Amino acid sequence: MKRATSRRERQSTFGEAALASISLDRADREPLHRQLASELKRLILAQAIAPGARLPSSRIYAEELGVSRATVVAAVDELIAEGYAEGRHGSGVFVAPDLPDHVLRAAQQVTPVAEATLPRPDEVRPFQPAAPELALFPHEIWAKLMLKTWRNPVRELLASPDPLGWAPLRLAIADHLRAFRGMRCAPEQVVITSGAGEALELLGQSILKRGDKIIIEEPGYILIRRTFTELGFKTAPIPVDGDGLDITKGPKDARAAVVTPARHYPLGMTMPLSRRLALLDWARQHKTWIIEDDYDSEYRYHGKPLPALMGVDEAGVVISLGSFSKTMLPGLRIGYLVVPHNLIADISAVMRERGARVSLFLQPVLADFMRLGHYAVHIRRMRRLYTKRQLVLREAIDRHAKGVLATSPEPAGMHLICTLENGMDDREAAKRAARIGLLAPALSDFFAGKPFRQGLLLGYAGFDEAVIDASIKKLADALR
Amino acid sequence: MKRATSRRERQSTFGEAALASISLDRADREPLHRQLASELKRLILAQAIAPGARLPSSRIYAEELGVSRATVVAAVDELIAEGYAEGRHGSGVFVAPDLPDHVLRAAQQVTPVAEATLPRPDEVRPFQPAAPELALFPHEIWAKLMLKTWRNPVRELLASPDPLGWAPLRLAIADHLRAFRGMRCAPEQVVITSGAGEALELLGQSILKRGDKIIIEEPGYILIRRTFTELGFKTAPIPVDGDGLDITKGPKDARAAVVTPARHYPLGMTMPLSRRLALLDWARQHKTWIIEDDYDSEYRYHGKPLPALMGVDEAGVVISLGSFSKTMLPGLRIGYLVVPHNLIADISAVMRERGARVSLFLQPVLADFMRLGHYAVHIRRMRRLYTKRQLVLREAIDRHAKGVLATSPEPAGMHLICTLENGMDDREAAKRAARIGLLAPALSDFFAGKPFRQGLLLGYAGFDEAVIDASIKKLADALR
Repeated sequence: MKRATSRRERQSTFGEAALASISLDRADREPLHRQLASELKRLILAQAIAPGARLPSSRIYAEELGVSRATVVAAVDELIAEGYAEGRHGSGVFVAPDLPDHVLRAAQQVTPVAEATLPRPDEVRPFQPAAPELALFPHEIWAKLMLKTWRNPVRELLASPDPLGWAPLRLAIADHLRAFRGMRCAPEQVVITSGAGEALELLGQSILKRGDKIIIEEPGYILIRRTFTELGFKTAPIPVDGDGLDITKGPKDARAAVVTPARHYPLGMTMPLSRRLALLDWARQHKTWIIEDDYDSEYRYHGKPLPALMGVDEAGVVISLGSFSKTMLPGLRIGYLVVPHNLIADISAVMRERGARVSLFLQPVLADFMRLGHYAVHIRRMRRLYTKRQLVLREAIDRHAKGVLATSPEPAGMHLICTLENGMDDREAAKRAARIGLLAPALSDFFAGKPFRQGLLLGYAGFDEAVIDASIKKLADALR
Repeated sequence: MKRATSRRERQSTFGEAALASISLDRADREPLHRQLASELKRLILAQAIAPGARLPSSRIYAEELGVSRATVVAAVDELIAEGYAEGRHGSGVFVAPDLPDHVLRAAQQVTPVAEATLPRPDEVRPFQPAAPELALFPHEIWAKLMLKTWRNPVRELLASPDPLGWAPLRLAIADHLRAFRGMRCAPEQVVITSGAGEALELLGQSILKRGDKIIIEEPGYILIRRTFTELGFKTAPIPVDGDGLDITKGPKDARAAVVTPARHYPLGMTMPLSRRLALLDWARQHKTWIIEDDYDSEYRYHGKPLPALMGVDEAGVVISLGSFSKTMLPGLRIGYLVVPHNLIADISAVMRERGARVSLFLQPVLADFMRLGHYAVHIRRMRRLYTKRQLVLREAIDRHAKGVLATSPEPAGMHLICTLENGMDDREAAKRAARIGLLAPALSDFFAGKPFRQGLLLGYAGFDEAVIDASIKKLADALR
């Protein structure tokens, strides 16, 4: 890892950027060299050219601005004469490091650029759930694919992007879902989004009407409830049992249900076949929709996964959501929506109305990454690593947190739910964890209503063995 | 420009991707080699491993799956015995190019991946307005910056992205706006978005309430009206005159006004100082908001631009929108919102609720591209090019379209408005243009109500001289 560029390095290159903002008017009665001198003074005053910065050579000015070198020399002479700049023998002209008093007074009225005022992004802290291992991502391969794609882009990459996504990526995702999730979807069913938030918005603008009632799982993923509420829908949280959501307990007038059948979020159980068939029946009979959030099904460590609900949907009532933020890197922000054939036209119309939102620049790179097998290899590698890390977390709890935390093995996922054996309230426990720099969300915070179960979510995927062990020791001490 | 990868090349590498989807269960009573053989058959049937593809070596299988090579050899032997695969002396094992009948029957039930069913993205057609020149973008520099940033990313790039955007990009944009637009904004006022659509949504979720009335320009940018309507706002289109929007003609109960003071879209006039001051007064007195869409102000060819409205706003009532889609490439989909200091907290809260949507992967690359001066140089280069192309368009109209089209020079922008000298309805003219493969939007389509002016929008920025000349000749013939 290298360090971010220093402020000094940034400033030294500013001259050229500022150059492009200079505007000269040949029709003006003021001579060009005076106009140029005024413009340069303006930029120096605004600190768009920093004190001490080297000015571009007169040849570059002349070329960029389309004026003679004599004009540039005359303008720069004026700057030097008035103390804005100074010539250093043999090495060019520099903005004066100490500007004269009258210049300084003017400059002080300009708001300085406050680099230090911007907060640094949060570091990933143990035990952030859903944080993948970052250091083992094949950055070199990924960066080279970027270079290969964009140094000489194919024509189609330069046109206005298709709001539904880059066709080869839609194809690669369809292939992936067929191999990994038993979903025989065609690429035209795949729509590229920035993630679950945008996907829910799209559904809110196409298949659902404002005020519709939507069944969600209780507990469940907070972003889903929040997004639907923001969009003007009513959410109906239905408590899950050991088999996940029981659709027969939901309100009769709901228009859709959002479910995590592969692995309930955050509790982790898999929905058995009987419940799945009941869900499909419900949607078919009531002409409602099932929104399947297939959020981390790539990480299954033992046993065969049931195919995605969408894989057994004959009636075209299931819509599936997926994302790459957990299998690749959190900053990627590329997700997808798989819609049944009968919905393609509606979703396409909405996407075209909204206009393309996901940058085209990463889509061909991701398509190549998948097509060339790098994605599948990376998932397999992470699967092995995370299997081990889950074991390390469980052993660390046994070793350091007896009587404080308890948990049991999970065949899949990136986090474990730990119960608080000493009866501490989970929100209090989460607060204590935060106080010592750890992130251990309280299960209570995943409930819309009164929580019927407590615990802490401990993510293990993104942290190495030593960190997991040491952090559990710290956490156990904090919770005693 | 190179061609996209062929289907053949894609298939030949599928084996490894499919490999990662294989799931073996050591607790199962079925021997591992039988499980492996079944899984491989499943993948061959699903065409996840294509007919004729080479299977990975037994060493790779053994390593990836954590089984002995003997297990792999036994499984592959079963595949060969049943006709799914064949060994070629010395070069490994391949999926049978012609599968046995019973296998074929099963395979035919699998929906084939329909690559050809996905439409190609639309080519850029003359005279698409707002289409920049694509071939002269410094692709090599851009691609190398991508490589440099991502082959060994700094730690901060791997953390959860800040929903407000990558700090160095916010800083680079603040610097750019100061140099180019006289907007002395601090980087914390800059919020990264995917473009105008998302920016308007954000404002709709923060400063405005559902049902609020918003003044828009008539004619104006269609996406603005559409987005606000979709979000549940009322839009009040106010006809512009030669000086742009006159805020005194707007309804008294409006909560915000969206304006293009630098250069009205699509008519092109600049709002004079008196109107700007009236706007600022209005917002200050009524505690309303001005949303300044500064959509292409980098492209000014003659005269000094007035600074952005936000540059003279002392009361904190102006919000400014900008984008890189017109100055760089349309597929980039990175824009920004500059908010006054008093709004930073509200917008931050909404952004954090929504979660990060813009990929982090391009933000540091764009920040470097700007910081190192490439962006400013590119804009300056395009400015010279577009100056010339506007002239070429006007000369082509003089040469080929006398009595059909008329236009006058513009000091800025990427398109000209042409009047139809033969009195043809502009929508009819746009239809005729479309029929011969040209894109010349009718001015009438930019009106919410009855159009009070007609004409065609002809973009010139993205097309070379020969194309402009030939296309005007074709267009004039079609309109006669």
